[in-house]
Amino acid sequence: MAEPMPAESVVHTHPVRVYYEDTDTGGVVYYANYLRFAERARTEMLRAAGVSHSSMAEREGLAFAVRRCDAEYLKPARLDDALEVDTGNIDLQAASLWLDQFVCRGGDVLVTMRVRLACIDRDGRPARLPQRLRGALQEFQKPTS
Amino acid sequence: MAEPMPAESVVHTHPVRVYYEDTDTGGVVYYANYLRFAERARTEMLRAAGVSHSSMAEREGLAFAVRRCDAEYLKPARLDDALEVDTGNIDLQAASLWLDQFVCRGGDVLVTMRVRLACIDRDGRPARLPQRLRGALQEFQKPTS
Amino acid sequence: MAEPMPAESVVHTHPVRVYYEDTDTGGVVYYANYLRFAERARTEMLRAAGVSHSSMAEREGLAFAVRRCDAEYLKPARLDDALEVDTGNIDLQAASLWLDQFVCRGGDVLVTMRVRLACIDRDGRPARLPQRLRGALQEFQKPTS
Amino acid sequence: MAEPMPAESVVHTHPVRVYYEDTDTGGVVYYANYLRFAERARTEMLRAAGVSHSSMAEREGLAFAVRRCDAEYLKPARLDDALEVDTGNIDLQAASLWLDQFVCRGGDVLVTMRVRLACIDRDGRPARLPQRLRGALQEFQKPTS
Repeated sequence: MAEPMPAESVVHTHPVRVYYEDTDTGGVVYYANYLRFAERARTEMLRAAGVSHSSMAEREGLAFAVRRCDAEYLKPARLDDALEVDTGNIDLQAASLWLDQFVCRGGDVLVTMRVRLACIDRDGRPARLPQRLRGALQEFQKPTS
Repeated sequence: MAEPMPAESVVHTHPVRVYYEDTDTGGVVYYANYLRFAERARTEMLRAAGVSHSSMAEREGLAFAVRRCDAEYLKPARLDDALEVDTGNIDLQAASLWLDQFVCRGGDVLVTMRVRLACIDRDGRPARLPQRLRGALQEFQKPTS
Repeated sequence: MAEPMPAESVVHTHPVRVYYEDTDTGGVVYYANYLRFAERARTEMLRAAGVSHSSMAEREGLAFAVRRCDAEYLKPARLDDALEVDTGNIDLQAASLWLDQFVCRGGDVLVTMRVRLACIDRDGRPARLPQRLRGALQEFQKPTS
Repeated sequence: MAEPMPAESVVHTHPVRVYYEDTDTGGVVYYANYLRFAERARTEMLRAAGVSHSSMAEREGLAFAVRRCDAEYLKPARLDDALEVDTGNIDLQAASLWLDQFVCRGGDVLVTMRVRLACIDRDGRPARLPQRLRGALQEFQKPTS
């Protein structure tokens, strides 16, 4: 479980710096804050794919809701740490997607998350993933060799 | 500045417990989090006056926006502390109000805040305070003797 | 999965009010914030058992670290909601414990979490659960009839 | 007050992206979160000056504590906004410093803050600013022409 995500599975990497706001009196990053880091990484992955949250809301009237987040905490991060969130293993379904997110420091895996996102419309009902998002994410997953 | 708010000026007191989420690696409550405590206290004061945020949004289409918050940090709070937020010295104006909020632990004043809230409509434009809110807050400020 | 925790499994219930700080621009509680609610509930359960975080740090030099948190998000909470966190199904092991936490609104289950906490010493190494904690938690789990 | 900080007064600029975690159900950035943005900017300014929080704690046993933060909220930031925090007008005193921080979006000033930081030792007592910090900050303030 402490193995890094295989390089060929990683489709996006997002850097995160640890600030005071992220830590707690135990001297480490508070456990809920890794979920904030993961959400920043997902947002930047989508933006890199040309699909910002704002554009998805305006153009398609759609948003993502987290349906599941299974997190395993292996090692703590601390103030001033330079972390990376690796996102990969994206599994696209009709109205939702699964992905893995690993929070790492150098070669060390600190936290692993398995996340399911559902696509929802303005009334919170399940909706099909927009085609341009599907295309962009599939592009990401192509082997680059 | 470290004097408690005079009892006759306090119109509402809200208890706050300090949890891990509120602290940072310095072993104290992170400075921005006192503003969260203050907002909880304002919300409960309004609720006690019969004016929840939800009801104000639904009935009058109005909300509050913080326009100013001047905070002075005197002593730190720590994990497990039982704090109180005293709110008082409310100065009602046409479309905004000023108030003082003191975060205390026992008789000790830890943080003082002077806050200005503007009443805004759904488009973010200044709006007059709703009459029922004005009435409720004036009731609070009456001497109880 | 949307069934409430059976009453006989619940060992502690903690009320949580939803404030602006907890919500996001989607109009619902931000997904990481349910983990803050859950941690408040665990802290109050321990306090009710006579074992505050502060006393555990001072007397035994021990703390808890979250090792795993599997969260399923079923329905969203919103501003001003009065929630409850039910904690139960505690499974005590030598140096860690598992528990379930359900965030509910009235009879509705909004979020379920399965959490593993490890007991650690000042150097972050695994440590046996202190006996007084073990006793207090077992007391909680006794049938009350 | 809505004028940008004069270019010659700005000693450091830090970019901040607005994520879901920063917003609230009003559709804007929650007021306490601008203080988090400001602290990130101060931390990066110090790091650029060669003085990370970690190195200051390890080498000099010193840290900064916010003593005062006067914030004026002029316009709201929203999801996906690309913001900048301009820091400047640093006034170095024996054991503390004042500085201005403006949160901007393009040419627009959204929030202004006037902050006083006190230098404290491991016991929380006032301490003189370390000489290497003083030197680094004075270097920042030199006219660059």
